[in-house]
Amino acid sequence: MLILRSGMACLLLGVIIGCFFYHRTEPLASYLLHQQMMDQSLQRIMYDLNKENIRAHLKAYTSKQRLAGTEEVKELVRLISQQWRDNGLDKVMVTPYDVLLSYPNISNPNKGDLVYVNYGRLEDFQYLKYNLSIDLTNKIVIARYGKMYRGDKVLNAQHFNCSGIILYRDPADCNLGKLEDSYPNSWWMPDTGVQQGSIGTDGDFLTPLYPAKDYAHRLDMNKVVKIKIPCQPISYGDALHFLRELGGVDAPEEWQGNLPMRYKIGSGFSNKSKKVRLTVNNYLKVETVENVIGIITGNVEPDRYVLLGNHHDAWAFGAIDPLSGTAALTEITRVIGNMKREGIRPRRTIIFCTWGGEEVGLLGSTEWVEEYMKVLYERAVAYINVDYAVDYIDTLVAGTSPLLHDPLYHAAKMVPNPDPTSSYKTLYDIWNKVTPGNGTGEPSVYYSLGASSDMATFYQRAGVPSVDMWYTFDRKRWDLLSFPLYHSAYETFHMYETFIDPSFNYTLGLARLWGVMSWKIADETVFSFDVRRYAKAISDFLKLLKIQYGTEWRKHNINIAALEFASMNLTTAAQKFHEHVQMIDRENPLTVRMANDKMIQLERAFIDPEGLPGRPFYKHVMFAPSKFDSYKDNTFPGIVDAMYEIQYNNANIWDELKQQVYVSTYTIQSAANTLDPIGFQ
Amino acid sequence: MLILRSGMACLLLGVIIGCFFYHRTEPLASYLLHQQMMDQSLQRIMYDLNKENIRAHLKAYTSKQRLAGTEEVKELVRLISQQWRDNGLDKVMVTPYDVLLSYPNISNPNKGDLVYVNYGRLEDFQYLKYNLSIDLTNKIVIARYGKMYRGDKVLNAQHFNCSGIILYRDPADCNLGKLEDSYPNSWWMPDTGVQQGSIGTDGDFLTPLYPAKDYAHRLDMNKVVKIKIPCQPISYGDALHFLRELGGVDAPEEWQGNLPMRYKIGSGFSNKSKKVRLTVNNYLKVETVENVIGIITGNVEPDRYVLLGNHHDAWAFGAIDPLSGTAALTEITRVIGNMKREGIRPRRTIIFCTWGGEEVGLLGSTEWVEEYMKVLYERAVAYINVDYAVDYIDTLVAGTSPLLHDPLYHAAKMVPNPDPTSSYKTLYDIWNKVTPGNGTGEPSVYYSLGASSDMATFYQRAGVPSVDMWYTFDRKRWDLLSFPLYHSAYETFHMYETFIDPSFNYTLGLARLWGVMSWKIADETVFSFDVRRYAKAISDFLKLLKIQYGTEWRKHNINIAALEFASMNLTTAAQKFHEHVQMIDRENPLTVRMANDKMIQLERAFIDPEGLPGRPFYKHVMFAPSKFDSYKDNTFPGIVDAMYEIQYNNANIWDELKQQVYVSTYTIQSAANTLDPIGFQ
Repeated sequence: MLILRSGMACLLLGVIIGCFFYHRTEPLASYLLHQQMMDQSLQRIMYDLNKENIRAHLKAYTSKQRLAGTEEVKELVRLISQQWRDNGLDKVMVTPYDVLLSYPNISNPNKGDLVYVNYGRLEDFQYLKYNLSIDLTNKIVIARYGKMYRGDKVLNAQHFNCSGIILYRDPADCNLGKLEDSYPNSWWMPDTGVQQGSIGTDGDFLTPLYPAKDYAHRLDMNKVVKIKIPCQPISYGDALHFLRELGGVDAPEEWQGNLPMRYKIGSGFSNKSKKVRLTVNNYLKVETVENVIGIITGNVEPDRYVLLGNHHDAWAFGAIDPLSGTAALTEITRVIGNMKREGIRPRRTIIFCTWGGEEVGLLGSTEWVEEYMKVLYERAVAYINVDYAVDYIDTLVAGTSPLLHDPLYHAAKMVPNPDPTSSYKTLYDIWNKVTPGNGTGEPSVYYSLGASSDMATFYQRAGVPSVDMWYTFDRKRWDLLSFPLYHSAYETFHMYETFIDPSFNYTLGLARLWGVMSWKIADETVFSFDVRRYAKAISDFLKLLKIQYGTEWRKHNINIAALEFASMNLTTAAQKFHEHVQMIDRENPLTVRMANDKMIQLERAFIDPEGLPGRPFYKHVMFAPSKFDSYKDNTFPGIVDAMYEIQYNNANIWDELKQQVYVSTYTIQSAANTLDPIGFQ
Repeated sequence: MLILRSGMACLLLGVIIGCFFYHRTEPLASYLLHQQMMDQSLQRIMYDLNKENIRAHLKAYTSKQRLAGTEEVKELVRLISQQWRDNGLDKVMVTPYDVLLSYPNISNPNKGDLVYVNYGRLEDFQYLKYNLSIDLTNKIVIARYGKMYRGDKVLNAQHFNCSGIILYRDPADCNLGKLEDSYPNSWWMPDTGVQQGSIGTDGDFLTPLYPAKDYAHRLDMNKVVKIKIPCQPISYGDALHFLRELGGVDAPEEWQGNLPMRYKIGSGFSNKSKKVRLTVNNYLKVETVENVIGIITGNVEPDRYVLLGNHHDAWAFGAIDPLSGTAALTEITRVIGNMKREGIRPRRTIIFCTWGGEEVGLLGSTEWVEEYMKVLYERAVAYINVDYAVDYIDTLVAGTSPLLHDPLYHAAKMVPNPDPTSSYKTLYDIWNKVTPGNGTGEPSVYYSLGASSDMATFYQRAGVPSVDMWYTFDRKRWDLLSFPLYHSAYETFHMYETFIDPSFNYTLGLARLWGVMSWKIADETVFSFDVRRYAKAISDFLKLLKIQYGTEWRKHNINIAALEFASMNLTTAAQKFHEHVQMIDRENPLTVRMANDKMIQLERAFIDPEGLPGRPFYKHVMFAPSKFDSYKDNTFPGIVDAMYEIQYNNANIWDELKQQVYVSTYTIQSAANTLDPIGFQ
């Protein structure tokens, strides 16, 4: 009896102890266990990625030209979607959109005197008009590529009443070696190479702001195309024939390119009887572009998405742009697909995207984001874009939302330096060595993601924190806007494996960075985003604005004090929130979710449904491409664009500026509210 | 030794059992326990609410006139905020906005012939112009209140080039008893009563779409005011003097009101030498309106909000509109504040709001929603509006988002019938008896919340599921747009306790419904929203559209098939989601949160950042006030407004209609995606 009673008592005591300890210790164990498993997954992604597979994919993908809307690109879509299915993704979808594309044809030629307009920037046109008093009306202008987005050069020409524009890439901007030693003997552009490119970035012209689905109502084609004048890209070999015939005065020193001649302005040829005839060889047609979307469903928070994106359409063979990226992405699907087969899934859903029609206006990604705007706005955590993987092997370059700044660094610290012989052991180390930030002690990144690739609609319209990154050449060595053979027919597999990345070590390195960063964001319990980066970015840019415009603003009663006050509120809220996150109970899934939600919402706080003035496509109040150059990245774009108009166009729009200062102040205050414990400061 | 070993073994066994059972049973117990506690809280709210307190508050609140922007309304704000603080809310804030208001002054008079235009609807003006060939240019028109929103009458007059408009409320629309037996002897309007009212609902004119904060940039006053002609409300006693002098033809039978005379049209008086002179006695000035916001922080999900709202500014004493609601709200803060003091908090945050400046354009609520748009859009679960509590005691009337349809019914079933002598035991039962739905077996509700009170900006712009409700008279008995003394100086405490709700039982009943419904949504684990109500609403309205316009639409190739297909997708997704919600693990807080989030996001899916055509304030694609009558509620407003223009104005805007059908199709499909397990159908 005694024994039995003792036994009962012990049993009871045991039950109590069991309850107590199980309750106390189980969740802690589970959190630490998860951290360990995540680290194992990250190592696995790192070392399972195989550069030979990437090489094989690149070779297959570049075997034909992959121009948007053609049968060859549809064939590529079938190949990729089959590969992704074979790799074991949960779901692979092809999402088609019928969009307006441009194809060859013959129409009436434009005729006129030729004028050389340097890079075709606003200041170039103004110099011609006001300093040289050259009448630009009905002239055909020839501009060199570089310094700014090509589409804005065409708009400038149209604004100055020119009747057409010819674009070429001057050797000064694509061949800094010996002219006679070009591709196929080097990576420099030969005199036969033509850079192509689109002149719009807002998605399908006929269905602005909404997806180009089968049920879409399409606008009248004649009413929507903003650009009315013909535009023709040519090689510098061809350009030479025109330029050396030009009459008129000498071009200024800084307008002189590297063709073997003295650059003159025009207008017209020295032989006055000769004119230029420009024929538009394009017509517009609704065609289909297709994306491939692959999904791995998260096992804890399936309604949170991390997206990896790249496009697959090219101007020709696209060995660099974009297929080096596509090849890497398919290899990532293989590794993560294998993990899933073994039961290893990330906490959140991972979505792999390869876009069609990027080169012709970011069409595939824009239409897809438009179609799924609501779920993406509510649920997407991060979009990580690799337009292409490598155009040279000097250094990584990355644009990022301030929120993804830290995850990017964390991942770069985990990835080995692609050069195994270097004394810099990680990708982060060599990146910081070659392109250090300005006094930060950290590698250089830029914050304002322009509209140069598929992150544009994710970031600018949906407010999804985004990254755009690739391996490239050191700009301190060569001051070029893009790699020499960019968008030409010479972007071949041969070129890639001969001049760009023969070992494929760098392509692999980029794939590792991409895979590791994505998995980590998808799998970590509490996001490693640092909201203080955002507050600091705003405060820093505000200081720059004040230095640049302070004196003039005081004269016009611009309320910069309110802007600074809101910025200070954000800084305080970010610091408080950061401290809060350090303290939260990582075992409580609801607490974790609430903290994570606030971090995502911080980016969304900068999205204004009304958009920037006259630009409904651009809704991010803090970062946007310049209104006057889609490649230029503006911080406080509403303010900076207004100041540009005031300064360069003598526009009297101080009221508009005041409105933009008001909207920016309000938006920054909104961001601060987002980080407040309850939300009402 | 043996004993010790047995003891150890038993202890170990006990630990294991303890772990097992504790783990298995604790959460289930916790969920059921919470359900019980919630039910207790609901009963407590019900029975602690005290009608004598409500009566005392109403008496105090109505002791002075409470016109927006005056010292008397500021005094009221101080009183309410002190009461709410005393009642123990966690935080009580007064949020001021500086907005454009209208005040008495003298300016140049307008002079002209008078024309009687019945209710001033589009069809009334068209009848005069086309059937009677009356030239309306520069005429001063006199219109009776009723049938539609007064502001749109003024716009109609302006559209037909009239030079001014006089508004009066005809006895036919405010006195169905004996004219000589009016207030103070009954609730009927006397011949001295003037109905006032605002003519805009979009918030502050000078800061459209953004909050009227101290740092706001204000637009130029002369550029923003849409209404250019003077408008003066008068009593029917005064109107009689004008109307009986009118010459011209007899007005049609249905234009005849109840004044003791034969109504004629004009234009002009029978004595041609007499003209009407109309003097605008108003000027515009920026003044302050203030809201009182009180917060009870939720103890599990503080970042989810349930809001109770009402306004406190009045045209005069405002005993019905709005202070009967304000008095009820303050009493609710007392009960919930007491519960908090005892440690009883809801799962989610409850926010009490009493708005300033509602009568002059929904100013306080609109500016506040604009200021906190981001957090409200991300986090608000429901907004429950009571503009006023009771204008008569026949029945409840309620407009609701389809999502809140079920919670409203649940709450009404819990609240006792305010008439204790009735055989209908609950508020739901008597509601269903007096105003049954059309063949549904359930009480009547309407879905499209117009812009008649402060839910407008919450619902139409932020997509927060909303309810608007009050006790009123049976419209089958009296066909009036509003109660007779509406917006007149006779809305006094005396009137309320003599003619409206002498027992205060109905005011109490409404307070109970409001408190119980709000607490339940704030405290229930999984929301009791039924997403199938939304799908059914859309499918039903689509059928109506097809009946009404089908033939004409087929002629113009309107893509109704796509619209129906999207609606079917939504119905399927809603059914699947509903089944999913029945099955989810209510013990898993993350699972619960993910399901709840999808329900809130369903309403947000209908918010289009681009807004309805030409109306950036209205972003809800499914429900909005009519473009042509702010009191009329449109379903598929983009489509219905376009059809109105086509049918009544002979507008050739079939392309615009096609665009609206496309946007509606897309939006409904977006809603379906929201309910999909992952989000990409």
